[in-house]
Amino acid sequence: MTTMNRQWILKSRPEGEIADQDLQLVETPLPEVGDGELLVRTTYLSVDPTNRIWMSDQKGYMPPVEIGAVMRGVSLGVVETSRHRGFAKGDLVSGLGGWQDFYLSDGKGLSKLPRLPGVPSEAMMGLLSMVGFTAYFGLLDIGQPKEGETVVVSAAAGAVGSIVGQIAKIKGCRAVGIAGSDEKCRWITEDLGFDAAINYKTQDVFEALREACPDGIDIDFENVGGDIFDCVLRLINFKARIVLCGLISQYNAPEPVPGPYALGNILMQRARMEGFIVTDYQDRYGEAMTQLGQWLQEGKLQYKVDVLDGLENTLEGVRRLFSGANIGKQLIKVSDE
Amino acid sequence: MTTMNRQWILKSRPEGEIADQDLQLVETPLPEVGDGELLVRTTYLSVDPTNRIWMSDQKGYMPPVEIGAVMRGVSLGVVETSRHRGFAKGDLVSGLGGWQDFYLSDGKGLSKLPRLPGVPSEAMMGLLSMVGFTAYFGLLDIGQPKEGETVVVSAAAGAVGSIVGQIAKIKGCRAVGIAGSDEKCRWITEDLGFDAAINYKTQDVFEALREACPDGIDIDFENVGGDIFDCVLRLINFKARIVLCGLISQYNAPEPVPGPYALGNILMQRARMEGFIVTDYQDRYGEAMTQLGQWLQEGKLQYKVDVLDGLENTLEGVRRLFSGANIGKQLIKVSDE
Repeated sequence: MTTMNRQWILKSRPEGEIADQDLQLVETPLPEVGDGELLVRTTYLSVDPTNRIWMSDQKGYMPPVEIGAVMRGVSLGVVETSRHRGFAKGDLVSGLGGWQDFYLSDGKGLSKLPRLPGVPSEAMMGLLSMVGFTAYFGLLDIGQPKEGETVVVSAAAGAVGSIVGQIAKIKGCRAVGIAGSDEKCRWITEDLGFDAAINYKTQDVFEALREACPDGIDIDFENVGGDIFDCVLRLINFKARIVLCGLISQYNAPEPVPGPYALGNILMQRARMEGFIVTDYQDRYGEAMTQLGQWLQEGKLQYKVDVLDGLENTLEGVRRLFSGANIGKQLIKVSDE
Repeated sequence: MTTMNRQWILKSRPEGEIADQDLQLVETPLPEVGDGELLVRTTYLSVDPTNRIWMSDQKGYMPPVEIGAVMRGVSLGVVETSRHRGFAKGDLVSGLGGWQDFYLSDGKGLSKLPRLPGVPSEAMMGLLSMVGFTAYFGLLDIGQPKEGETVVVSAAAGAVGSIVGQIAKIKGCRAVGIAGSDEKCRWITEDLGFDAAINYKTQDVFEALREACPDGIDIDFENVGGDIFDCVLRLINFKARIVLCGLISQYNAPEPVPGPYALGNILMQRARMEGFIVTDYQDRYGEAMTQLGQWLQEGKLQYKVDVLDGLENTLEGVRRLFSGANIGKQLIKVSDE
């Protein structure tokens, strides 16, 4: 085994888009494993829009990553060395391992994952993880879908959005997705079963939404914000629910971004908009994993992972989220399992 | 009794502020009272921010007033003639009587009000009416205040806001009001018992709010929108509730107005914003009237009415709402009881 580790260090807070010099990949010696500790080798790293929030100093749901610290990130890994009673060499674990080849842990915040027959570890990152839990609790708990209702989801070919639409279908709703390419639109309608898809780069989103949602919009699962969100708000129904899950269109904005012009429609339609972050549901992750796993085995749910090879390409992976290059969950493969 | 009626007719939809020529006061003969009908003489007319919404053609919670029709408005009146079994001459009634001296009704949507000893009919318009019910259901049902929480209310010296703060105090909360003059600020703190008041015309609202809400903001009762709303959103706590009751700052705007720049904080704080219109609670008005009446008799609630004399001054009354000239509920006195 190597004696060296590679780590992505946050050097400065990005202004607007992440610049190359905001992060640096450095080599450091592997740490000693103390009593009660374990060393994990990262296999997959999850890159997520929230990484961009953690790089900034804005008041968020977690403290900003300190300048000079290893960049925070969710990862899947295998225990290499354990001096902790709860973990053994070879265990599959997930947690906030960070952007690095190896990390030391005292076990806190680390989840030991089962090796399920027939379920590749990619599924653990693309569906049976925070990604799937976000779709599950956001849509079901905050959105409260009822049969026959219309659910709109933005970033619909993304990790979370693609699952939201499928759960909406399972619940008997009409699912309409907004995505950024014809290929993505085809995937979510033809493979995933969305009722309609809108390519926001080539279509008039408002007109297309009006056509795709003849009975109006009952639930908006909002991942994007900005103009697209405004179009949705103009079409919401009485007592609509807006699951405010992400605002990726503005995470890179160097200046404050105005909120929706159609705010008044939330008042007129007595709609409810609620901010949602999946970590609040930590004590119910088991429920979500069981249900999502069952739907997966029943063939009711599909997921897609978009894997970029090599820790050195992590920054490129994050940029793909903001340019919309990824289809499905963007992962970085760091080492073989 | 006179044989003539005066009616305010909507001639054109205002663009921006209401122009004199958008409405016209005309004289028309009193209508005949048919079988099953009654004629009501208006005593007080309520002018409300929502009047401005009804004049526009925006998709609202009620259809726009038709061009050429009598302007819609809530009023208090006395039955002059009745050929309806449910009402007798002399009954006190309230409903959407419109901007006119007299109106004909078939009784639908009309409420017969008790003549309570010691309760002037002004109270029926300033507290024991939609005004009070809006404060009551908005704060208690949507806001769900808990003892010790901080409640911020904008337009705090207005009809609804002044009652919201007092109910917040009754429920053991810290009440902070935002208003437009030192006189209003003094009234809500010294007479109504608000813990703090901010004059948005002379103070830095964000800094003043931060000082007045040392534990952050748990509930925002929003009547105004715009910059003030943005300042509030920057200070909301985890799981804050935003009762979206009105957006008076933008009803006169001729151009679309951007929503709050601090929208992202609703996500970060997992806050809930909910649109609210009191008419949805019609079947619970009795509950609110009983409770508000009890608090009034116990000396726990005060209200203020700002009465302008004469139906011909109705438009001036509406303008006072937008300039912030009124303190408490703006009424038009149309005739003696």
